[in-house]
Amino acid sequence: MKWILPLLLQLISGPMHLNRSLPIGIFDSGVGGLTVYRALHEHLDNERFIYLGDTARLPYGTKSAETIQRYSLQAAAFLVSRGIKCLVIACNTASATALDALRLQYTSLPIIGVVQPGAEAGCGASASGRIAVIATESTVQGGAYQRAIKQLRADAEVTARACPLFVPLAEEGWTSGPIVEAIARRYLDDLFAARNPPDTLLLGCTHFPVLRNVLLQVVGDAVTIVDSAETTALALKKLLAIQKLEQSAGAVARVSFMATDSRERFARVAAHFLNEAMPSDAVELVEPTFAVKH
Amino acid sequence: MKWILPLLLQLISGPMHLNRSLPIGIFDSGVGGLTVYRALHEHLDNERFIYLGDTARLPYGTKSAETIQRYSLQAAAFLVSRGIKCLVIACNTASATALDALRLQYTSLPIIGVVQPGAEAGCGASASGRIAVIATESTVQGGAYQRAIKQLRADAEVTARACPLFVPLAEEGWTSGPIVEAIARRYLDDLFAARNPPDTLLLGCTHFPVLRNVLLQVVGDAVTIVDSAETTALALKKLLAIQKLEQSAGAVARVSFMATDSRERFARVAAHFLNEAMPSDAVELVEPTFAVKH
Repeated sequence: MKWILPLLLQLISGPMHLNRSLPIGIFDSGVGGLTVYRALHEHLDNERFIYLGDTARLPYGTKSAETIQRYSLQAAAFLVSRGIKCLVIACNTASATALDALRLQYTSLPIIGVVQPGAEAGCGASASGRIAVIATESTVQGGAYQRAIKQLRADAEVTARACPLFVPLAEEGWTSGPIVEAIARRYLDDLFAARNPPDTLLLGCTHFPVLRNVLLQVVGDAVTIVDSAETTALALKKLLAIQKLEQSAGAVARVSFMATDSRERFARVAAHFLNEAMPSDAVELVEPTFAVKH
Repeated sequence: MKWILPLLLQLISGPMHLNRSLPIGIFDSGVGGLTVYRALHEHLDNERFIYLGDTARLPYGTKSAETIQRYSLQAAAFLVSRGIKCLVIACNTASATALDALRLQYTSLPIIGVVQPGAEAGCGASASGRIAVIATESTVQGGAYQRAIKQLRADAEVTARACPLFVPLAEEGWTSGPIVEAIARRYLDDLFAARNPPDTLLLGCTHFPVLRNVLLQVVGDAVTIVDSAETTALALKKLLAIQKLEQSAGAVARVSFMATDSRERFARVAAHFLNEAMPSDAVELVEPTFAVKH
């Protein structure tokens, strides 16, 4: 297992040395986490970012907890070997499944997932306490959102539903029109046709914000749609301040994008998520075992 | 790279020893190849089969050629280490991209892909020579079907179109109804509305046969829909006979299923493809590095 190497190196070199000039590491199974990156970029003006999408093994949402944990540990080891001052798991599936394992492995690295901030956004938006969470199969089955919401608000009534087709729809760039609407209706209509329907729809997958307009049409104006991007950015900002890890004012913001497969596809799909073109040579290709390709 | 081990073992133990009592190895990125397995099972009564679905890393169709080749070589090495008398690549993406690499690696093992048999099925069914191929992004971009058809029939007019959403639809079990029809229309309507439309639709992905009824509705009765399952079974039967590798008459047919992730999900989705329930304990879980899990 090649990811052991950086861990050994880290052990040899002693406790992790974090300094404020290092970049913020962001990890996702693919491009969905770019919706989180956007929010981070907006709220953290002077920071450097290093974004890793594990496109060679996506999607994570249909995979087992054990596999998701192994992949997440490998990705984190790679980012740590590159030098980061904190890690954002910009993938709900990985956050829901691997956050504890990651924190155990990197005790001195601040690590933040998107589930807790997402749950906070959901609870903050809901008046009635009836919150619907939509996510991947794996996130829903693991129950992390349901638990996080209940912990914040014991009287909450949480309904969680897996919407697996939303991921390939977002990746394909089919983010509006009758087909997406029909699929959304099939997944959601009965949830919101209940006598006391949820007043909040929490997007528990970082792919889903690009479908927001269609979802709004389907669930109606009475429902507030929230996701974890904004609250994750605010939580990270707070964490960096507490740990005195903010970049000095006036530093130049910068981002590096890395993918484990197909720079062209990453750049093409990323454009849907960032609302701007990305040249494929802006993406660095790294092996899924996370040694740099030559 | 752990897959080197079985290769080394093979080198040490001399040329591969094939005998007719060994099983037929079948490899696919996931469950789609079960449509090919069904046809093999029907045509080869007395054979044993060992089916490996690389569910921890599916789908292959959106990944790069290099990654697909690496994954396919790892899967083949694993099946070879288990003992097989021939190998069927029951995945169009892997066949289109990795068949040459596999044959170079295993010169004494009979290996058959689904692209050549698929191209034969398409050419056999078409009167006009106008053939539409639908497949994954990677298969269409690689152009293997277009080349295989042109070699069989120089006057053929081949149109190839990627239909990436068909894969998750099939996996989700959404194989009929207005949503699937609308998606199929979006992908295919303009192809078949041409002045001289294709008379044959070749399903260049082993997931697609489960959508056959919807596709028939969309393209109309004048179009013949073919896939590679049947012709692959016939080609394999011929190959086994030539190599004198058929099982003796009266031998008991048997199959082992293996997946690199989530036995439960494999069994659940497999049921859509086999039209019969599969208990999850019928599936053996193996590591993506293809050492057996304990």
